Amino acid sequence: MQEEAIGNNIIMNEKHLDDLVSYLKFPSVSTDSHYKENVRGCAEWLSSKIDEVGLEASIHETPGHPIVIGKNKHSEDKPTVMIYGHYDVQPADPIDLWDSPPFEPLIKDGKIYARGSTDNKGQHLAHLLGLGETLNENGDLPVNIIYLVEGEEEIGSPNLEPFLIENKEDLDCDVIAVSDTGMIGPGMGTFTYGLRGVACMEVKVIGPSKDLHSGVFGGAVANPCNAISKMISSLHDLDGRIKVDGFYDRVKEIEDWEKTAWSKIELNENETLDLTGAPELFGETGFSDNERRWSRPTAEVNGIGGGYQGEGSKTVIASESFVKLSFRLVPEQDPEEILNLVRYHFEQCKPKGVRVEYEMGHSGKAYLMDPQSGYGLAAQRALRNTFDSDPALIREGGSIPIVQSFKDVLNVDTLLLGLALPDCQIHSPNENFSIENFYDGIRLNRNLINEIGMIH
Amino acid sequence: MQEEAIGNNIIMNEKHLDDLVSYLKFPSVSTDSHYKENVRGCAEWLSSKIDEVGLEASIHETPGHPIVIGKNKHSEDKPTVMIYGHYDVQPADPIDLWDSPPFEPLIKDGKIYARGSTDNKGQHLAHLLGLGETLNENGDLPVNIIYLVEGEEEIGSPNLEPFLIENKEDLDCDVIAVSDTGMIGPGMGTFTYGLRGVACMEVKVIGPSKDLHSGVFGGAVANPCNAISKMISSLHDLDGRIKVDGFYDRVKEIEDWEKTAWSKIELNENETLDLTGAPELFGETGFSDNERRWSRPTAEVNGIGGGYQGEGSKTVIASESFVKLSFRLVPEQDPEEILNLVRYHFEQCKPKGVRVEYEMGHSGKAYLMDPQSGYGLAAQRALRNTFDSDPALIREGGSIPIVQSFKDVLNVDTLLLGLALPDCQIHSPNENFSIENFYDGIRLNRNLINEIGMIH
Repeated sequence: MQEEAIGNNIIMNEKHLDDLVSYLKFPSVSTDSHYKENVRGCAEWLSSKIDEVGLEASIHETPGHPIVIGKNKHSEDKPTVMIYGHYDVQPADPIDLWDSPPFEPLIKDGKIYARGSTDNKGQHLAHLLGLGETLNENGDLPVNIIYLVEGEEEIGSPNLEPFLIENKEDLDCDVIAVSDTGMIGPGMGTFTYGLRGVACMEVKVIGPSKDLHSGVFGGAVANPCNAISKMISSLHDLDGRIKVDGFYDRVKEIEDWEKTAWSKIELNENETLDLTGAPELFGETGFSDNERRWSRPTAEVNGIGGGYQGEGSKTVIASESFVKLSFRLVPEQDPEEILNLVRYHFEQCKPKGVRVEYEMGHSGKAYLMDPQSGYGLAAQRALRNTFDSDPALIREGGSIPIVQSFKDVLNVDTLLLGLALPDCQIHSPNENFSIENFYDGIRLNRNLINEIGMIH
Repeated sequence: MQEEAIGNNIIMNEKHLDDLVSYLKFPSVSTDSHYKENVRGCAEWLSSKIDEVGLEASIHETPGHPIVIGKNKHSEDKPTVMIYGHYDVQPADPIDLWDSPPFEPLIKDGKIYARGSTDNKGQHLAHLLGLGETLNENGDLPVNIIYLVEGEEEIGSPNLEPFLIENKEDLDCDVIAVSDTGMIGPGMGTFTYGLRGVACMEVKVIGPSKDLHSGVFGGAVANPCNAISKMISSLHDLDGRIKVDGFYDRVKEIEDWEKTAWSKIELNENETLDLTGAPELFGETGFSDNERRWSRPTAEVNGIGGGYQGEGSKTVIASESFVKLSFRLVPEQDPEEILNLVRYHFEQCKPKGVRVEYEMGHSGKAYLMDPQSGYGLAAQRALRNTFDSDPALIREGGSIPIVQSFKDVLNVDTLLLGLALPDCQIHSPNENFSIENFYDGIRLNRNLINEIGMIH
C-alpha cells in the first residue's frame, strides 16, 4: 500500500482514491431509464467493494433500483449503527457547462471533479473505506454495522420507506449516521442536528371562462392575476413576518445556546450577498441570517403564472392564474395543520369575483435531535478528533425526508455528519469533492464507530 | 338588379352580397408574410370595386401593405367626410375550431361566416356600396368623400399615421366616419362617442443572481415572486379602487345624462355573467357595470410569471419575476403622467431586498367627442332613420389608436357607427356578420352622407 503526504497533513492511500475514481465512472443517473444498466452496474461494483473490505454484501431488489447492504457479524453486546448513503446521481445536464466530462473523474488542485463526487458517492465510500481500514487493522468493528446505500435518492426515495417497513427487524439499529449535508467551511467539522420540514400547496384562481379583452371588460370583472397577487401579498407583513393566524403557534423557540453557537459562525453580510447574488439581505425582523434559514418557518412562492407570457403586450384579462407555494416548517409545526391554516387564511381574504381551488402537495415534518444525547456527544467527539477543533453545531434549512422516515419507521435519530463544502457544486456542472474531505471522511468513520462503540 | 325581401324588412340586392362574398375570399392576413400577395390582391379587388361604383380609386404604397383610397370629385361648397376601414384581417387560427373554412364564405341563418366578415370588410364595404347606390341614383354625392381603407390595422397601423402626416392636405376633411365598433344589440343603432385610452408597462423584479434552493436560503433573502405580488396588490384596495396617488386627479366625471342613458341599456347581472363566464361581478364600488367599463380607469395585470412553471413542485426561490400591466385611461388622464405615477408608487412601496426594472410600453389617450355637436347630431339622425328608433349613446372600454391619430393629425372628430353584434366572434373562429346589418350599413351610409350634406 503506497502512502504519501499531499497538502499539509493528509495521509493519502492511492488505492482509496483509485476506488473513488472507479466508483465515479458509473453514470448511475436514477431518473433516466437510459442509464438503468449503469445504475445496476454501479450497485454491483459497490456490492463487490463491500465484500472486499470485509463486510457481507447483499443486493435487494425494489420496484425501482436496488438497495445495497453490507453487514459485519452482529453481536448482542454492541450498539448497531446504520450508515446510509445513495449511489445514484443527478443528471449531468447541462453537459456543455462542464470543464471536464462528468463521468471521467479529474483530479485537480486537491479536488476530484465528477458527477456524484460529493453527492453522495465520495461521502459514503469514505465511510466504507473507513470500516475497511478498521477491519483490516483489528479484524473486527466496535459496533454492529448496517451499511445501507440506495439508488433512488435523487428521485425522492420512493422505495426506501416501504423497504424499511418490510425489513424493520433486520434493520433494527440504535442510531443512523449520514454524510450528505454541508460543512460550514474547509476543515471545520459540522454536526447538523436539525432540518426544516416542508409543506407544498398549489392554488389556482379562476375568473372568467375565457381570456377577456381588458378594454371591453376591464373594471367590470375581477382579474385572477390581480386577485392572486392580493392573496400572496396577504401572507407576509412588510417586515417578512407571516400573517396567517396560528402559523407560529407551535414554533419551538430557538434556545439561547443555539443563538450563541450560530452567531459565531454567521456569514457576514457581504458573504451572504456574494453567495446568493441578492441585491440586499431581507428576512423576518429580529432574527439573524442563520436563525432565519435554520429555525424560522417560511412561506415562499416557488412559481407563479397567468395571462400573456410572450414578448411585448397583449391586453387580456386572463381566465385563471396559479401559484405554487411551499412552506418550510420548524420543530413542532405540523404540515397538515399549516396547510389548513393557510387555506383558511386564503378563504378569509380572497378577493371578490373569483373562485379559488387548492391542491395539497408533498409535506414532511421538521427534524430535531438533541445534540447532547449520548450519540450526539459521540458524534461531536468523533468530529473533534478528526478535525482537531470543536465542531460547529448547526441546523439546516432544507428538508431530508428520509431522516423523518428513519425516525418514523425505525424510531432512531440520525447523526448528520456532512462533508460537502459550500463550493462543491452538487446538482450543478463541475461537481467536485475535496480529496482532503475524502480522507477526513475515512478518519471520521473510524473515530465515529470507536466513539459509539465506547458508549456501551 | 334582383331585389327580394328576406326576414322582416331587408331589401336584398344579390349583387351586393356577391361582392361581399368575393371580398371575403381573400385571405388578407396582414401579420403573416405568406399572405403578402393575397393582401395585395385584396387591395386591388377593392380598388376595382371603388372604380366600379363611380369613385376614383388609387393605391398608395407604404413600407408595408398599401392604402386604398376612393374619392369623388370634390367641391368647395360641400363638407368633406372621410370613411375609414381596413381590408386586412386577423389570422384564422385555430383553423380546426371553425365550422366552415374561414375564407370560403358561408351564408346560413341570416349571417355570413368568414374571417373579416364583421372585422372589417363587411362594414366598410357596406359604406362603399351605399355610396355606389347614391351615385347610381343621383349621379353625385351630397358630400366630398375620402374613402380610405388600410391594410395594416390588425398589426397596429404602423404606416397609417405617417401617411396621414405626409398627405395631410390631400386628406383634409371635416369629419371621419368609422364602422368598426359594436352595436348594443340587433337592430339597435349605436353611436359610440368615447373610447378609453391605454398605457402599458412591464415590471421586472430581480432578486438573487440565480434560482436558489428555497430550503437552504428561504427566509434569508427576498423572494421576487412574493415581492411582485406585494407590488401588484398595492394597486387596488379591496373594493377595486386604485390606490396610486394622483391616479384619479384628472378623471373627468361621468355626466348625469350619461348615467341616465347608460342605465337604460345596462345588461342585467346574469347577462354579464353569461357573457364573461365570471363567477360573480366585481368592480369599483359606486359605479354600474357600464360606468366601470366605459368611463372609469383600470389597472390590470395582463400577464404575470416567475419561478417554476411545470407540473408538480420545485422548491426554488426564483431569480426574477415579471408582470405585464396595462392601464385603461379615461378623458383627461395623460398616459405618460399615469405611467410616472405608477412607477413612483412602486418605488415607494417596493419590498426590501429586490431590484425593480420598468419598461414602458405603448400608450394612447382616451377619446371623447361631443355627441351633441353638429356632426354628432347628424350621425344620430342617420342612425334613427336607418333603425327606426333612437340610437344608443355609448362609450366603449377599448382603445382605437387611429381615432386619436385622426384627432392629432387631421384635427377632426370620428363618428363611430358600429355594426358589430355582440356574438359576431371577431378575432375568433366562426366570425360572422349579420346580413341584415350589411344592408343596414348600406342604408346607414346613405342616410349619413345625406344628413352631413344638409348641415352646410
